[in-house]
Amino acid sequence: MSIQPKHRIGVAIGDQVLDLSTITDLFNGPILSECQGVFSEGFCSTKRCQDAPPCNHRRLHDFYSSMFHATNVGIMFRGKDNALQPNWKHLPVAYHGRSSSVVISGTPIRRPCGQLKPADDPPSLGACKLFDFELEMGFFVGPGNNLGDPIKINKAQDHIFGMVLMNDWSARDIQKWEYVPLGPFLGKNFGTTISPWVVTMDALEQFAIPNCKQDPPAQPYLHHDDPYTFDIKLLVAIKAEGMKEGAVVARSNHKNLYWTVKQQLVHHAISGCNMNPGDLLGSGTISGETDDSLGSLLELCWKGTREVDLGGGIKRKFLKDGDEVILKGYCQGDGYRVGFGECTGKILPAHPC
Amino acid sequence: MSIQPKHRIGVAIGDQVLDLSTITDLFNGPILSECQGVFSEGFCSTKRCQDAPPCNHRRLHDFYSSMFHATNVGIMFRGKDNALQPNWKHLPVAYHGRSSSVVISGTPIRRPCGQLKPADDPPSLGACKLFDFELEMGFFVGPGNNLGDPIKINKAQDHIFGMVLMNDWSARDIQKWEYVPLGPFLGKNFGTTISPWVVTMDALEQFAIPNCKQDPPAQPYLHHDDPYTFDIKLLVAIKAEGMKEGAVVARSNHKNLYWTVKQQLVHHAISGCNMNPGDLLGSGTISGETDDSLGSLLELCWKGTREVDLGGGIKRKFLKDGDEVILKGYCQGDGYRVGFGECTGKILPAHPC
Ligand SMILES: [Ca+2]
Ligand SMILES: [Ca+2]
Ligand SMILES: [Mg+2]
Ligand SMILES: [Mg+2]
Ligand code: NI
Repeated sequence: MSIQPKHRIGVAIGDQVLDLSTITDLFNGPILSECQGVFSEGFCSTKRCQDAPPCNHRRLHDFYSSMFHATNVGIMFRGKDNALQPNWKHLPVAYHGRSSSVVISGTPIRRPCGQLKPADDPPSLGACKLFDFELEMGFFVGPGNNLGDPIKINKAQDHIFGMVLMNDWSARDIQKWEYVPLGPFLGKNFGTTISPWVVTMDALEQFAIPNCKQDPPAQPYLHHDDPYTFDIKLLVAIKAEGMKEGAVVARSNHKNLYWTVKQQLVHHAISGCNMNPGDLLGSGTISGETDDSLGSLLELCWKGTREVDLGGGIKRKFLKDGDEVILKGYCQGDGYRVGFGECTGKILPAHPC
Repeated sequence: MSIQPKHRIGVAIGDQVLDLSTITDLFNGPILSECQGVFSEGFCSTKRCQDAPPCNHRRLHDFYSSMFHATNVGIMFRGKDNALQPNWKHLPVAYHGRSSSVVISGTPIRRPCGQLKPADDPPSLGACKLFDFELEMGFFVGPGNNLGDPIKINKAQDHIFGMVLMNDWSARDIQKWEYVPLGPFLGKNFGTTISPWVVTMDALEQFAIPNCKQDPPAQPYLHHDDPYTFDIKLLVAIKAEGMKEGAVVARSNHKNLYWTVKQQLVHHAISGCNMNPGDLLGSGTISGETDDSLGSLLELCWKGTREVDLGGGIKRKFLKDGDEVILKGYCQGDGYRVGFGECTGKILPAHPC
């Protein structure tokens, strides 16, 4: 017999978690000071907590909002002269993703099977050979809009609840063969990992920095002047089997996004599409300008033309079975940090396919 | 004060609906014949029933499985020599759609706003000018698979619950500007209409006909010999304001699909993607071979080069405000029909954008 764990909402403070269910009635009651005891009862160590997904039934959508990433991918696949598609600087390009396979940090990810198309042979079913991560951040929508009624840019922040780290696992070989003309499908839908703690926008406000300068200027429905880009330091590490700790392969920052979270939300809803509580919108791979700030192995190994050094003689182009990918993120305050915790996943070997 | 209607599951028989909640306990009880009375209590006229969505929280995915449709679109946008993409006959091409805006037959659809890109001018926000329908059928998944464990083709039918009519409303001008390289987004996410009655696969079995011959043959993971294509007669009518009834603009059939429903499901899950009860998978536009069997206005008006005659001097290239689009579908048995009911929606004018 197993006991179904009871999911509760907690607030992480240092290495402690405050169980909000223990204080549910407190703020309706008369005097907080009479009930101080509840705070000691309500805390437990993060080590004793088991992470659970922050919400159910969400939908997943993924943008493509780092110009460095989009340019790199464009150069690799279309050459320098046509790197950015004509629409890229006019609207935040995005696609609908698969929400059922969004999992919480720590969940192993099985290498997917799918059709692979070698250059000179017909396509055939096989296990993905070009298994990649994508360093992203996602935000949760709440409360959202009714069908047919877009969200105005000056109301956008009322519908953005908070942010998580996100690894949009990608099967580059499956994706390459399938994605024309309707976009990524099996190359992305086998798993997306998020960090368990949602950092609210209130907590991030103090780390806001000027938005990326946009040229041409954003169209009026997307235009806003208030800073809504955040100084969130991000890193990716890979820990191969046998390694004691992960080797950092990239350091990036939320500020490497061209389009703001507000612009992403407003664009998604401009058609009248109704955004719902729990919808998760990914940023797209957050690559920076330099070679040590690239948010995917596709870019780090430049389409397989160079190796990424993990130390101790271990090198990678794409991910091998047993590799663990670790994303971390935090904002540095004056003497304190606001952290996102970890977003990790270890690769399981493919099932026979 | 309003009274929240209680949603119940019913079985439609002719113009009557059997309310299954009235017979919940019956089939657990001892002798059916003692309880015949419940059948008369349990029936009510379809006219007295208000349709409700058949399930909540579903996800939406849309295939592109009519070769006639894919070829037509290919010819229009890429010319005759490259009409079908290289992957099209190897896998059932599909994309993830937006489920929050799936609505039930009869729900009005508001003309969406989005970025439009005239040939020689920069893009700007405006109301969609090329508003289209897509004649499709969708099927509901149940029960589905666990993450990481694909569905085998010989088990596929255990996970296919039943089918509905589906209108995948499309904004062709928004879609055209946004969809490279990640697929359709705002051009599709403002509304998708389904018929209220789910016809189970058991009810359709007797109308199975041989599957489309596939060349090259489907890969082993997609191969099945049993007929799983259905003789479902489909039609689209448009009823402009002032018209007494809709004018039929196209007649098609489920048999115009190249990929079967089983192949669509198995392909979607081959990566290990977990399919869940309530997931809705659309067929893609079901066009036939002839000019009177095309499942979208894009094809019927051949990209705006010819007009569709609704009679009484009324002609259309794309949909106007006030137009109602009516999809119907049925299987013809010997002296009876299995019907899907109607799938309708009327266009509301755009909000100022
Ligand atoms: Ca991504
Ligand atoms: Ca469609
Ligand atoms: Mg993913
Ligand atoms: Mg739609
Ligand atoms: Ni629910």
